[in-house]
Parts: sequence; structure tokens; C-alpha cells
Amino acid sequence: MSKITVKLGLEKEYTVNIGTDILKNTGEIIGAIHSPCRVAFITDFTVGTYYTNTVVDSLKDSGFEVYIFAYPAGESSKNMETYEKILEFLADNQITRSDLIVELGGGVAGDLAGFAAATYMRGIDYVQIPTSLLAMVDSSVGGKTSIDLESGKNLCGAFWQPISVICSVDTLETLDKKFFDDGVAEIIKYGMLGNEKILKILHSCVENHDNLHFALKPFLEEIVEEAINTKISYVKDDVLDTGRRQYLNFGHTIGHAIEHASRYAIPHGHAVAVGMCSMAKAGEALGITEEGTANKIKALVRECGLPTSTIISPKDLYNSALSDKKRRGENINLVFPISFGKCEIKSVKIDELLNIITLGVK
Amino acid sequence: MSKITVKLGLEKEYTVNIGTDILKNTGEIIGAIHSPCRVAFITDFTVGTYYTNTVVDSLKDSGFEVYIFAYPAGESSKNMETYEKILEFLADNQITRSDLIVELGGGVAGDLAGFAAATYMRGIDYVQIPTSLLAMVDSSVGGKTSIDLESGKNLCGAFWQPISVICSVDTLETLDKKFFDDGVAEIIKYGMLGNEKILKILHSCVENHDNLHFALKPFLEEIVEEAINTKISYVKDDVLDTGRRQYLNFGHTIGHAIEHASRYAIPHGHAVAVGMCSMAKAGEALGITEEGTANKIKALVRECGLPTSTIISPKDLYNSALSDKKRRGENINLVFPISFGKCEIKSVKIDELLNIITLGVK
Repeated sequence: MSKITVKLGLEKEYTVNIGTDILKNTGEIIGAIHSPCRVAFITDFTVGTYYTNTVVDSLKDSGFEVYIFAYPAGESSKNMETYEKILEFLADNQITRSDLIVELGGGVAGDLAGFAAATYMRGIDYVQIPTSLLAMVDSSVGGKTSIDLESGKNLCGAFWQPISVICSVDTLETLDKKFFDDGVAEIIKYGMLGNEKILKILHSCVENHDNLHFALKPFLEEIVEEAINTKISYVKDDVLDTGRRQYLNFGHTIGHAIEHASRYAIPHGHAVAVGMCSMAKAGEALGITEEGTANKIKALVRECGLPTSTIISPKDLYNSALSDKKRRGENINLVFPISFGKCEIKSVKIDELLNIITLGVK
Repeated sequence: MSKITVKLGLEKEYTVNIGTDILKNTGEIIGAIHSPCRVAFITDFTVGTYYTNTVVDSLKDSGFEVYIFAYPAGESSKNMETYEKILEFLADNQITRSDLIVELGGGVAGDLAGFAAATYMRGIDYVQIPTSLLAMVDSSVGGKTSIDLESGKNLCGAFWQPISVICSVDTLETLDKKFFDDGVAEIIKYGMLGNEKILKILHSCVENHDNLHFALKPFLEEIVEEAINTKISYVKDDVLDTGRRQYLNFGHTIGHAIEHASRYAIPHGHAVAVGMCSMAKAGEALGITEEGTANKIKALVRECGLPTSTIISPKDLYNSALSDKKRRGENINLVFPISFGKCEIKSVKIDELLNIITLGVK
């Protein structure tokens, strides 16, 4: 098991534990940093079916008293209704400020249970057990928690750091291909933001194997660790997301717009994959991006089994993007690739956004 | 107009502006610290009727673009439903992270709009314009924002500091006696926590006048300033409410239980008044409180037009208190008066709480 210490700005530090078959040590890992207490264990019915017993037994063995809350899997649960149910569940089971939330699941579980932890009694401790590649590499660092509004994704939330993260990469084996690929899109992003090791592993896997899911298996611990370390380097001095952290938004402005305009029928990573390709294409047209970069990104994205374009119209994407919370007044910050493996932030006028989207997706 | 600088722990500092007839300067006050932007103005239909035009005109004159959201006055609006409506309103009107929420009203407006500000896009700036005595002296410092759950009051919330507070004490003139007295209870609390000036003003007012509301009028700016300074002294090194800040909970454990058990029919200050008297009585019975203190507190509370006892049974209060978020595991921290004008925190076992409540309210 490897351990990464996460120390972001003024926030309390915590450890991301990465290993294989380590869920059975959950109680021991948490017991080392928190005295026995009540634990609200929050998971979805789908992934919860596989791992709840292992985690709950381990917690009980270490002296924790466990209360279980489960909700239907999927982004459609990441709303005000489930959030309210979780809060009432916490109160009904007399969870106090000295107790703990432990969540197990993908990005939805982390965002939802994390936001409940951030706001129940104005904040209680929580532990993340991400079981999707996306959640391991993306949600485990940065403390972003959120729920969706009718008007848009992640429009409501808070910054709240976990006290520990447990990534047991064997849980990725029960993940559907679609969800696995979702995480691969974020991994490509960390490559594009400068992590050469990641690009090397991905290239070698897609060159030598038809099945990326299978080919990546021996590299999972390493790739999760690399992605997390890259994310930390972008987040550590910008916890509140006003500067350098915005690089992590590469592919996400158009990505979020695609998710929103498709009413979340297109999953996050797939949308981000299209977003990254589009920004490269638009960047080349605008003379920001080195020629040939768009083709290189597209080739990698395609070989990883992810889409490179969308059928949603530029106008619809533009309207969806207008509600994106990254927008500041009359300008919007966009991340363009400068070359393959290097990105830069450009502030552009809202008026220009439609043109950029059109250049990117047409 | 007097100004108090509030600098709590690592939080950004802000100014509380206290004066008479200063709502017409709202745009100027905010314009001095924030560039023109969209403003979501949040108020309730009752108090909003009196002051919305003055505030909105002033904001517009200073170049702000204003969108108005109003909700029915009262604690029953401080729930998940209104919170969600506010968030969707913000999104519908394309409020971004660089825009502003300005709330006008009593404690409900501050808690509700403050929690929306704390969580919309993971946090945007907001300005408080408290129009009740309670909100001026209690909610304007400390950054506590919250909504109620079915299971209890203020169980969901966040710490979020305003960028400015504007207390125009003339707004207290439109306040019902019941709500004014609510604030007086908190003022008494600040006296009991060591502010002798406050106790002196209150004593002189109740001795010389039948109508406290009227008698306090010339002292309002002074008393609001004194109360806020006392609150700052308790909060400044304990923003997250784990130590010294707990003194501010004097009268509140039983107070919250009374509110909860009465289904909020008994208003906050009235419940806290009973809570303070009860803690003095219980403290005397337990040998913690100097004899005669309970009678002194009761006399002042009664002369200020507030209740000193409750008809709710100790058992019902105990059950309501169990869901209070100040409870930590098997112990609860209670604030007892040691003498008139001096308090201390005692950690007691949950088992003893029923006995303490019984001693206090019987």
C-alpha cells in the first residue's frame, strides 16, 4: 500500500491510501486517525452491494458503530432530494460533530456525501472510499463537494477536505467499461497538463492491447498515484479555485456544456474527452495551439475508446456553458493546449465563446 | 455612523457599519468594497415591503444590477425548500462567483441567504443588512449560516463570513415588540457574559420606563456596538466553535430545546431567556452558581418583558436537547452562570442532563 500526504493551503493534511484489496483494512486505517464513534456509511445500492459487508465488518471490528444509508446509483441522485434525505438520516441517528461519515462509491457518492459532511451541523469529518477511476484520480484531492441544481451541474456545494481517502484499485474490476473510460479521460487530462509518465503508460497500453481496461490493470496503482500527485501540484496553493487550479478545468467548459445539453445522458469523462479535443481544434484555428496537437489528442482519445466529437449544436453548447460557474462577469477563463502535454489559461470575452465552441466542435 | 472591524481567525476581515437612517447609503457602502456587478437582493415579503425600494435604488445609483427574491417571513421559511428556490433563482439570473448576494431582514434572512451564499457555486460574497435587534447583535458576527431540518433547528449550515454588515438601527422601529424582546434576550446574555455597560443600560432603562422598546431608543447604536464587540471577543479565536465561542451558547441548550419542543411557537429570544433563568436555577441547586444569581437574572428578564419559565416538561425538553448539535458523543458542554455577569462552561454526562433540566425548569 502506498500513501500520499495531501496538504492543501491552510487545510488540515490527510492521507490518500492506494493499494489492492485494502477495503478489509478500512477500520484499521480509520482507527489510526479517529477514535471509535458512530459512523454514517453512505453508498449507492449498486456498488454498495459488492463492498458494504467488507467495509462495515472492518469498521465494527475496530469499534465503530455503523449506520447505513444507500441511494439509487447515478448522477440523477446527486440532487437536493437525496441530500436532504441524508441530512435527516444523520439527525435521526443522532450523528454528532464528533462522529464520522464514510462514503463508498464513485464521484456521485463523494460529491453528495461530501457536501452532506460539509454542511451537517456546519461540518463533520468524512472519509472517502472511491470505487471508480474518476473518483480516485479526480475527487480524492481538492475537497470539492457538490450537488446538481435544475439549472446546472455542481452549482451548489462547498470546499470540504476528507480526513482520509482509501483507494482500493481492485474495486475498479467491477466497474462498467463506460465508467472506467470516464476515468481514463481525466487521466489523459493529467497527461496533457504535463505528466509524461501517464502519457507513456497510456501510449504503451493502447499500442499493445485491444482492451485498455485489461491492459491498464498492472499499472493502476501507479497511474492513480501519478494522477493524484499531478492534481495536488495544481491544487495545493489554490484551494479556493481562483488561479492555478483552473488548469484542471481543461476540457471541462465544453465538457460540462455537453453533459448539461444532453441532460447528463453523456457521462462526464466522455464529455470532457470531446471538450479536450475541441479546445485543441479551436486553439489551432486561433493560432494558440501548435499545429498537429489536435490530431495527436484525438488519436489518443479515440484509442482509449472515448468520443472526439459531439452532435450537439454549438449554439446549444454555448447556452449551457453560460450557466457554468467558472464564468466570471463578462469574461470566461478557458484552458487551451499549447502543444501535446502543455496547457495555458486564456481569459476570453463571453461574446467570443460561441465562436470558439463553433471552431472546436464543427 | 460607527464602524467595527471584524477579524476572526484566518478569515478575511470585514466592517460592521452601525448608524441611523443609513440604508440609503447601501450602494455607496458596498461600492467602496466591491466593483459594480449583479446583485441578488434577498428579503422577506414583510420587512422587504418597508426597505426594498431604498436599498435597491441606492444599489442601482451605484451601478449595481439588482434581481429581487422574496419569501414569506418567519422561521418556517428557513428550510430546504426556500434554500433550493434561492439557489435556482441565482442560477436562473446567471449570478456568478464574482457577483453578490445582499440580504435584508432578521435572523432568518441572514441564516438562509448566508447559507445560499456559502454554497452557491461553492461560495460567493454576501452583505448582511440585519433589521432585527437579534440579527444585528447576534448574526452579524461569527459567520454562522444555516437552515432547519425536520429533525431540528440549524442542523444544516456552513461558516461563511459576509464582506460587509449594515446595521441601520431605525429599522428596529418597524419591529414588533415580540421580535424586539427576542433581541433583548441576547443583549442580556452579553451582559451576563461580562459586559457591565450593557447591564447598566438595561437596568437604568427598566427602572425608569415602562416601555423598554421606547426607553432603549437613544441607546440603540451604543448597545448594538457593545453587544457586537462582546461577541467578537468570544468568537475571534474560535471561528469553528470548538472552544471559547461555546460561552455564547449560554441559555441556548434549553432554549433550543424549548423552541424545538414547542415546534418553534416560542421564539428564539424568549426561549433563550427561559434557558438562562433555568441554568442559573440549576446551577444554584448544584452548587455551581452563587446563591441569589437566579433571582437577579429572573428579575431582569421579567422586567425586560421576557418569560422566566416554561410549561414544557423536563422529559420533552431533554428529548429535544438530544438532537442539539452542541452535543459531543457522551458528554455535553453547558454554560452555567457562576454569578451575575460571569459564566463558565462545564462538560456534563448526557445521563445528568435530564436532572439538570429538571432542576432548572421545575
